[in-house]
Amino acid sequence: MSTEKKSAKEWPLVKGRALNDYRVFRTRSEIARSPRTGEEHEFFIIEGGDWVNVIPITPQEEVILIEQYRHGSKRIELEIPGGIVDAQDASPIAAAERELLEETGYRGTRSTFLATLRPNPAIQENNLHIVLIEGAVPSADVRFDPAEDIHIVPMPLREIDHLIAHGKIAHSLVVAAFHMLDLHRKGLIRA
Amino acid sequence: MSTEKKSAKEWPLVKGRALNDYRVFRTRSEIARSPRTGEEHEFFIIEGGDWVNVIPITPQEEVILIEQYRHGSKRIELEIPGGIVDAQDASPIAAAERELLEETGYRGTRSTFLATLRPNPAIQENNLHIVLIEGAVPSADVRFDPAEDIHIVPMPLREIDHLIAHGKIAHSLVVAAFHMLDLHRKGLIRA
Repeated sequence: MSTEKKSAKEWPLVKGRALNDYRVFRTRSEIARSPRTGEEHEFFIIEGGDWVNVIPITPQEEVILIEQYRHGSKRIELEIPGGIVDAQDASPIAAAERELLEETGYRGTRSTFLATLRPNPAIQENNLHIVLIEGAVPSADVRFDPAEDIHIVPMPLREIDHLIAHGKIAHSLVVAAFHMLDLHRKGLIRA
Repeated sequence: MSTEKKSAKEWPLVKGRALNDYRVFRTRSEIARSPRTGEEHEFFIIEGGDWVNVIPITPQEEVILIEQYRHGSKRIELEIPGGIVDAQDASPIAAAERELLEETGYRGTRSTFLATLRPNPAIQENNLHIVLIEGAVPSADVRFDPAEDIHIVPMPLREIDHLIAHGKIAHSLVVAAFHMLDLHRKGLIRA
């Protein structure tokens, strides 16, 4: 049985070319060579900027969730704020603070970087940064982008496990963010 | 301040059209009408089959992780087995058992459906099913697809939190799967 531990190897890139531009993401073809067989295979990659997800927690230990219609799943999803890290954002934390303010009008008093994950390393090249913002309170009116329509749903932090377990929160990147919060609160993530 | 709770509304679909086919995913354009402004906006959607992620646990409480080069992130990623649910798979559990066997040669004695999440409902229409397979033991040789090169890494379940906290496991869909395992082990997920 071939179950012994060995190390995986990198696949040398033979050539890549841009395919299509869909505004929020682009596609690319890449030919890479298998280190096992020496054969070339074509892979399709989705390019796009890095993303940031924010867990905003109020002084009353409520999480500021948002509800919005999502065109991929064709459902109204319960999520946390987040978006694309802009070129003007000085850091993922700055991007998180900007997205929180834009989408909810909240500002916090303490921002903590929790993790950088990869949304889907098989087909996407970008990163997902996860930031905790504590002491979040309403501080400005919300001005949506014309293609956005977001509703704010404050929810006790202790209810989040149940919302996920019962499928009310089903966005995998949001579930992953709450896992990183659990590891942070267990003291496993060092600053 | 507009922070009161309201309900988000669905966006009526005006028209959709297929764009490109990239073998493992396809793209589509959709025009939808904002329920807030009445204006039409174009969204780009990634189509593809549903995915399944498997957490295989041995009788010794080891998780069978796999290591493989990922062409999106250009890194060797530490993950759990998984793949696309085929038309021939009778259920997500059957797909999980097939993927586990194909990628690792392991079979289990008990399969438990943990959750259906959405990989990224903003731009992807598909689901991610998460299945726990306990009693996993090696039972067959592995036969890779020519475009695969997978190495098996058994790891004690109690080490998984540390691997995630230290960025050794960084695939967000894998992190989300371990979160669902946590909720299952806390008794929050009912069969």
